[in-house]
Amino acid sequence: MLFNFFPKESNLFDLFEKQANYALDAALYFKDLMLAGIIDETSMQKIKDIEHQGDDAAHDIIDHLNKTFITPFDREDIHALVNEIDDINDMIYTIVRRLKVYKFNGVNQNMVAFANVIEQSVTAVAAAVKAMRNTKNSKAVSELCVEINRLENVGDSMRDAMIAELFETEKDPMAVIKWKEVYQDAETVLDICEDVAHVVGSILVKQA
Amino acid sequence: MLFNFFPKESNLFDLFEKQANYALDAALYFKDLMLAGIIDETSMQKIKDIEHQGDDAAHDIIDHLNKTFITPFDREDIHALVNEIDDINDMIYTIVRRLKVYKFNGVNQNMVAFANVIEQSVTAVAAAVKAMRNTKNSKAVSELCVEINRLENVGDSMRDAMIAELFETEKDPMAVIKWKEVYQDAETVLDICEDVAHVVGSILVKQA
Amino acid sequence: MLFNFFPKESNLFDLFEKQANYALDAALYFKDLMLAGIIDETSMQKIKDIEHQGDDAAHDIIDHLNKTFITPFDREDIHALVNEIDDINDMIYTIVRRLKVYKFNGVNQNMVAFANVIEQSVTAVAAAVKAMRNTKNSKAVSELCVEINRLENVGDSMRDAMIAELFETEKDPMAVIKWKEVYQDAETVLDICEDVAHVVGSILVKQA
Repeated sequence: MLFNFFPKESNLFDLFEKQANYALDAALYFKDLMLAGIIDETSMQKIKDIEHQGDDAAHDIIDHLNKTFITPFDREDIHALVNEIDDINDMIYTIVRRLKVYKFNGVNQNMVAFANVIEQSVTAVAAAVKAMRNTKNSKAVSELCVEINRLENVGDSMRDAMIAELFETEKDPMAVIKWKEVYQDAETVLDICEDVAHVVGSILVKQA
Repeated sequence: MLFNFFPKESNLFDLFEKQANYALDAALYFKDLMLAGIIDETSMQKIKDIEHQGDDAAHDIIDHLNKTFITPFDREDIHALVNEIDDINDMIYTIVRRLKVYKFNGVNQNMVAFANVIEQSVTAVAAAVKAMRNTKNSKAVSELCVEINRLENVGDSMRDAMIAELFETEKDPMAVIKWKEVYQDAETVLDICEDVAHVVGSILVKQA
Repeated sequence: MLFNFFPKESNLFDLFEKQANYALDAALYFKDLMLAGIIDETSMQKIKDIEHQGDDAAHDIIDHLNKTFITPFDREDIHALVNEIDDINDMIYTIVRRLKVYKFNGVNQNMVAFANVIEQSVTAVAAAVKAMRNTKNSKAVSELCVEINRLENVGDSMRDAMIAELFETEKDPMAVIKWKEVYQDAETVLDICEDVAHVVGSILVKQA
């Protein structure tokens, strides 16, 4: 502690890194579930546990913020960042929960494709949040943000193609209702990752 | 007035109590409508009037805020609180309006069940907002927030069970489209109540 | 420049006027597309270009904000305003993209009606944003905000009537799914315009 003049400030970065890692846990487990093509009670419990751990990590940051006078970056950016990262975890949990309600059974290649892009994007988000603590990393963070934006565009095109195909080939309206919603939700995860990238980018600009 | 050094500050709590009571009016009237199983022009006008009263109460708070330099808690928390309470009223109004568009006719037991949980949650929200003015009530407020979170979980399970049943038993896709949306909207009211609880909780933490 | 003590402040108003004009470009082009009843690759590219120009205008405002210490109105209002105006452009782009996915082909009179109301509302938004720079215009801005609110109510009634008719007359559930979503999205543009009006109104109140 002798050489650390801002112990609470570095702590905040640790807390954000922890929170982002839970979002990554959710993304990785989501990919496992999509590859397995089945969601049972055990997997439902596991994704719920990850979501709770993410919630706790978010609350730790808010608690920390309420007890800290000086913060390494704007309080409103801290609030935005903690909420956006939490939204990643929440949205993945929502998708798994919906698939369970819809009796998801069997591998859906569209969902595998989305899970892959989500994994890539959340991996980049976690790396950007980790690198954010040092302004020397600003070029690397900037490149990660560009990659997150690229993956959001990839997701938009995937969703559009999948929904267009759904309306053309699926004869059962119930299936259209379900899958249209789930594909839109999957793309929303990538939108949220892009929102995180915007907040991280704006924090770096202010510190430059 | 002699002993009130912060007349405007206490006024803010009065204004919030008033706003929360309009949200409660909406929840109570919504329950009446769900029990009656019919929405006519008169009931449509009444729920619209409650929504307008809620709007006016929200505008009064913003006006008060714009004219006041010192506030009893953070301005950003005041903004968040006024918007979240307004969202309760708006969402209930949206549901009633949608049911009218969908020619809702006859008691739907799922909607009665949701109206009951919504009544409980908004009652707890109004009580928490009322108690918020005195830090001595922080334990009571904290218990109300726990209850609001519990009711949100109850609502999640209700919505999932209702939608799963809808896809299994309802043969008419038009009915699935309508009820799926309305059940999700009903649960959203409980999500908003939970958001109010978070803001109230965070205000209390900062004042501790 | 000799007589301009706050060059950066007036610049902010120029930037907002520019951003609002891109939202108006989107609204006008949307009307053209609805009147033509067809969305091809060229029109898709054009609406995308307008959306990108709007994005760039939004980024310019955030960049300006990050480099400026004194702003002519609250930083949180600037953030709210830039995001809401951006949402107009985004939502119109989303609708066009969805119509493309849904193989929109042929004039739909409901969409023409919505495009007309959207054009009126975004025209009023652009005028309010332009007038905002001078407190002498506060009565004119106030009247524009009343008009934007009126148009939002018109849009609500249009959407409700269109969706009620859709469920009564359309036998194809796939068509119901598509048009219900698009009508709700079209009304959302008017909701966002109303949100812009609220922010502009609140900025004027504070400056009075």
